[in-house]
Amino acid sequence: MPQATDQAQTQHHLRALNDAVDSGALQSIRHMLKSLTDADIAHLIESSPPKQRSVLWRLLDNRREGSVLQELGEELQANFLKNKDTDELIALTDGLEPDDAADILQQLPDRVIREVLLAMDAQDRQRVEKILPYHEDTAGGLMNTDNITTRPDLSLDVVLRYLRRHDELPDIIDTIFVVNRKDKFLGLLPISKLLSSDPSMTVREVMTTDIEPILAHTSDTDVASLFERNDWVSSPVVNDEGQLLGRITIDDVVDVIREDADHSLLSMAGLDEEADTFATVRATAPRRALWLGVNLLAALFSANVIGLFEATIEKVVALAVLMPIVASMGGVAGNQTLTIIIRGMALGQIGNSNTSWLFTRELGVAVINGLIWACCAAIIAVLWFNDTTIGMIIAGAMVINLMIAAAAGVLIPVALKAMKIDPALAGSMALTTITDAVGFFTFLGLATLFL
Amino acid sequence: MPQATDQAQTQHHLRALNDAVDSGALQSIRHMLKSLTDADIAHLIESSPPKQRSVLWRLLDNRREGSVLQELGEELQANFLKNKDTDELIALTDGLEPDDAADILQQLPDRVIREVLLAMDAQDRQRVEKILPYHEDTAGGLMNTDNITTRPDLSLDVVLRYLRRHDELPDIIDTIFVVNRKDKFLGLLPISKLLSSDPSMTVREVMTTDIEPILAHTSDTDVASLFERNDWVSSPVVNDEGQLLGRITIDDVVDVIREDADHSLLSMAGLDEEADTFATVRATAPRRALWLGVNLLAALFSANVIGLFEATIEKVVALAVLMPIVASMGGVAGNQTLTIIIRGMALGQIGNSNTSWLFTRELGVAVINGLIWACCAAIIAVLWFNDTTIGMIIAGAMVINLMIAAAAGVLIPVALKAMKIDPALAGSMALTTITDAVGFFTFLGLATLFL
Repeated sequence: MPQATDQAQTQHHLRALNDAVDSGALQSIRHMLKSLTDADIAHLIESSPPKQRSVLWRLLDNRREGSVLQELGEELQANFLKNKDTDELIALTDGLEPDDAADILQQLPDRVIREVLLAMDAQDRQRVEKILPYHEDTAGGLMNTDNITTRPDLSLDVVLRYLRRHDELPDIIDTIFVVNRKDKFLGLLPISKLLSSDPSMTVREVMTTDIEPILAHTSDTDVASLFERNDWVSSPVVNDEGQLLGRITIDDVVDVIREDADHSLLSMAGLDEEADTFATVRATAPRRALWLGVNLLAALFSANVIGLFEATIEKVVALAVLMPIVASMGGVAGNQTLTIIIRGMALGQIGNSNTSWLFTRELGVAVINGLIWACCAAIIAVLWFNDTTIGMIIAGAMVINLMIAAAAGVLIPVALKAMKIDPALAGSMALTTITDAVGFFTFLGLATLFL
Repeated sequence: MPQATDQAQTQHHLRALNDAVDSGALQSIRHMLKSLTDADIAHLIESSPPKQRSVLWRLLDNRREGSVLQELGEELQANFLKNKDTDELIALTDGLEPDDAADILQQLPDRVIREVLLAMDAQDRQRVEKILPYHEDTAGGLMNTDNITTRPDLSLDVVLRYLRRHDELPDIIDTIFVVNRKDKFLGLLPISKLLSSDPSMTVREVMTTDIEPILAHTSDTDVASLFERNDWVSSPVVNDEGQLLGRITIDDVVDVIREDADHSLLSMAGLDEEADTFATVRATAPRRALWLGVNLLAALFSANVIGLFEATIEKVVALAVLMPIVASMGGVAGNQTLTIIIRGMALGQIGNSNTSWLFTRELGVAVINGLIWACCAAIIAVLWFNDTTIGMIIAGAMVINLMIAAAAGVLIPVALKAMKIDPALAGSMALTTITDAVGFFTFLGLATLFL
């Protein structure tokens, strides 16, 4: 009964898919898809190379396309949607939750959006139109309109009977929202209280009023940290006038948390846009090319620094052998500082009130570790080249470079953030450029002075 | 009414704290702490340098210490716990949820655990003892025992009356678990169905049985991906015999998702253990030192490769100027491949059924981007040093290094994973060592052959 590990299962399905694609026996795959949930199919599609992926789409029951699509990442959604005509899009959005339908519609041209909306029934259209104006990266874009509301003056018994009149209630129903006649949000009636209180009490007597609703234009990252901090399962969303617009549920917030965390990791390697692990060469190469081009410029800059000291290197070739060590140590140390700062920023821990303490701490760490490894490097250099001065030079350059690296590791992300540039994206390239250039300059510069 | 952005608020509190620490006017801080939630205080503590942090602990109401503590990261918990005597620990765990109390106890010596358990009332002790044997990184360690259970043969009306007899129900109550007389898990009774169905129906008629409970020894990462995939709010946990042990709720899963995502980012910079952004110099320096030492060894290895070609460099100093470019381009390209693979592994997308496709794709990307930027680098080198052969050499070395980098970016994490070594931790260092060494070797080797 209990499941095998998730990953083993995916790989098992993928192997079956590979075999079926090779042998042409696709009937078994159709069968397999029937037994999987929408989310499992979406995961299988995201884990498949293009050929297998197109087979999966072809074999998938048309009626499940919409619900599988909304489990996929944006990039895959866009790839899939671009080949669909309006009728297919209408069929696809039919039966989706309003926030998911809106997410799909927002990727389409205005003309198509209008046609799809016209084909919906009045209630669905109204719900989707309520969400459509909000960018998908805001609370308004995350919200759904499946919330259940009540008035403060009703008794709990009436609320219970009202709920019983529903054929089906939303899967996630942890609170009912209390509003006045003008739809202004007044408070929450938690289901746990509804179930455990005396049914003759009124909503007003039981409701919680100390929770602040989320404003529709709050960023999705802020929404995520509110949910994380307060252990919410759902939360009301209001407009600037305090009127209830809808609600956000934790399942959509979990996706935001995952995406935000992914973003830092991918950005630090210059892969900001790389959502699809199995994108084709044609899609991948151009995206990565730019970053490599920027790095070529950065590397040329460092090469120029070395070029300043050609005469010195010509005299003592050992310098060419040792100089990458100084640059590399600075790069690694600086990258550690940078990563800590970027993560602290993502967690909302770092601002101008505590940056200077971090700056001092990082410098302290750099001095200690710089001295330790500079001594080691110096001893090795002296033994290798039998020259004490070279040992002193590499040690001095390394301590200086590690200190500059620590300072840059704190200041670069702070400066980038102040300039509204994503520190995760631009930070590591900027840092390495500095640690390379400073590493080469101090090492070769000291050598020019003392050799 | 609606809140300022989360981050602005934290920084506001931190500035107030700094001012108070400087002026000694601590009463206002005591006041501020009263108005904040446990989670907000925990976030403030995590965002504070050591001096401010100790003031916060001192001013915090004793009765809130336990609940604030359980919102903190492990490292901060351990720091705080190590100065507490047994009586203080007993006071601290009093009133905590069993899984949180167990998390704290697991960090203490066995003798202290026994004493704290003895001081608890019988029911609490029984609950905590049920969780204590499970490692905190498993479903058993994540679970809580606040689940509500029912029998299949009862009517919904009886269940509703049973719920009403509770003074307080858990905050998150989305499903009731259905068990038989031997506590074997039979199915779920979603609250949404309990509220919308005819009260005269039996639990058996309404319950869902197609959900598989989580086994207690499932890893927390697998638990997280099950919750993410299935949009669960809570899930039952069973032992190997299918007996219900407790439940996991989404709020604890969100923490796992955040930690797992953080782990990849930190590990790639060799910061696996760096949970506390504001750790002291004394705590930080030794942790980072090891990684720098490993990098020094790696850099010495690359330096050795350069050393093989001292004679060539002596003849043509331009080589020393250009060689870091080849190494750097390989490092950046390889790191992009590595990051994609590590993220794909963390998402459970990559296994032996699709690795070879990724390998081919990455090689394809490397050839295309390698050729583009090799041409640019060649032209620049020719113009700079007025030597066509050097241009051809740098272009050839760069294409080779980018291809090796792509291959290494796929193979290193796959090999590390097979050896049960964390790819995120060891991958980037191993990769850079290869791209540096190969970059220097091909560039200087080709130069030795052709110059």
